[in-house]
Amino acid sequence: MDTNPRVGEPPIRIDEENSPWRRHNRTVVYENDWITVYHDDVRRPDGNPGIYGVVHYRNRAVGIVAIDHRDRLLLVGQFRYTIGKYSWEIPAGGCPAGEEPIETARRELKEETGYTAKSLRLLVVAHLSNSVSDEKAFCYLAEDLTPGQPAPEVTEQLQVQWEDFASVLHRIERQEITDALTILAVQQTALMRLANQGV
Amino acid sequence: MDTNPRVGEPPIRIDEENSPWRRHNRTVVYENDWITVYHDDVRRPDGNPGIYGVVHYRNRAVGIVAIDHRDRLLLVGQFRYTIGKYSWEIPAGGCPAGEEPIETARRELKEETGYTAKSLRLLVVAHLSNSVSDEKAFCYLAEDLTPGQPAPEVTEQLQVQWEDFASVLHRIERQEITDALTILAVQQTALMRLANQGV
Repeated sequence: MDTNPRVGEPPIRIDEENSPWRRHNRTVVYENDWITVYHDDVRRPDGNPGIYGVVHYRNRAVGIVAIDHRDRLLLVGQFRYTIGKYSWEIPAGGCPAGEEPIETARRELKEETGYTAKSLRLLVVAHLSNSVSDEKAFCYLAEDLTPGQPAPEVTEQLQVQWEDFASVLHRIERQEITDALTILAVQQTALMRLANQGV
Repeated sequence: MDTNPRVGEPPIRIDEENSPWRRHNRTVVYENDWITVYHDDVRRPDGNPGIYGVVHYRNRAVGIVAIDHRDRLLLVGQFRYTIGKYSWEIPAGGCPAGEEPIETARRELKEETGYTAKSLRLLVVAHLSNSVSDEKAFCYLAEDLTPGQPAPEVTEQLQVQWEDFASVLHRIERQEITDALTILAVQQTALMRLANQGV
């Protein structure tokens, strides 16, 4: 442990071999089509024995900020079973092994909303909840959109809605939009636009 | 399922009783001090039977954007066991039942970095990964800081470092900082500052 705040030093890069954690044993305690839950017996950074429950996500998460020529953003509404609430979010979906996240972005945008984008570029990459899970998310900005027919998955019951970009930022501030992937992708878009304006 | 994109309608608010999901049975498949994993038998929104694995977090997550009078932001570095990588993040910790998130913010800032803040205000609230978990995060902006002695938890092995606010934003863009809680809290701070400048 370093108790002395260091000023101005570059961040130290440590690879896996230098992990202060050691895994003694790993057991699969739960598995379904989306996640595997491991119970690990570990040696903690302080040298003492401990346990770690890790939620491994089979797919990476991919979110899409889709903006039209009227500066509106595409939102998808669905009831989220986990939190027992309706949630408005950017279109998103899972990127299975062997698929490129940008292909997932293209596919999910089409499936959930019907739209296709001429331009798709990476906005931001995030680990959504790294104290417990390894879930990694990729967010894309989709522009030059053409409408089409959506084809959502059977488990989904979605509403699709265009909303002014500025209004979405206000709804984040008012805690009406709380999905982390949506928040960080929309914020990154806002900051990028302000930077392009020379702010 | 609504396949017709609706334009300009206000978002519909649906309470739990109106959930298109129905739970038939719930089994605890794993539990430790931090999470409980449920396996649920459900009726899906399309009316067909299905399953849902839900990761319930015992604590809410609380993150703190701490900024000093030189416009530097406090980052904490630690090796994240789940992703097998070193990660630079804002100070953060768990808010147990019965504790107010702002109290957690005060406590974690002190424990992890030694600093106390005269001013603490809510920045943003997020559900970190709502397709699988119910984890809810609260982010605070801490200002008017006074240094002190840190006292991190035994499982933690932390480095503490001050970094220019603008530099942290660049490191998010370069994917050197990937923690979602850190990203959305820092971005919200950046957008708030730009709004205060009349941008």
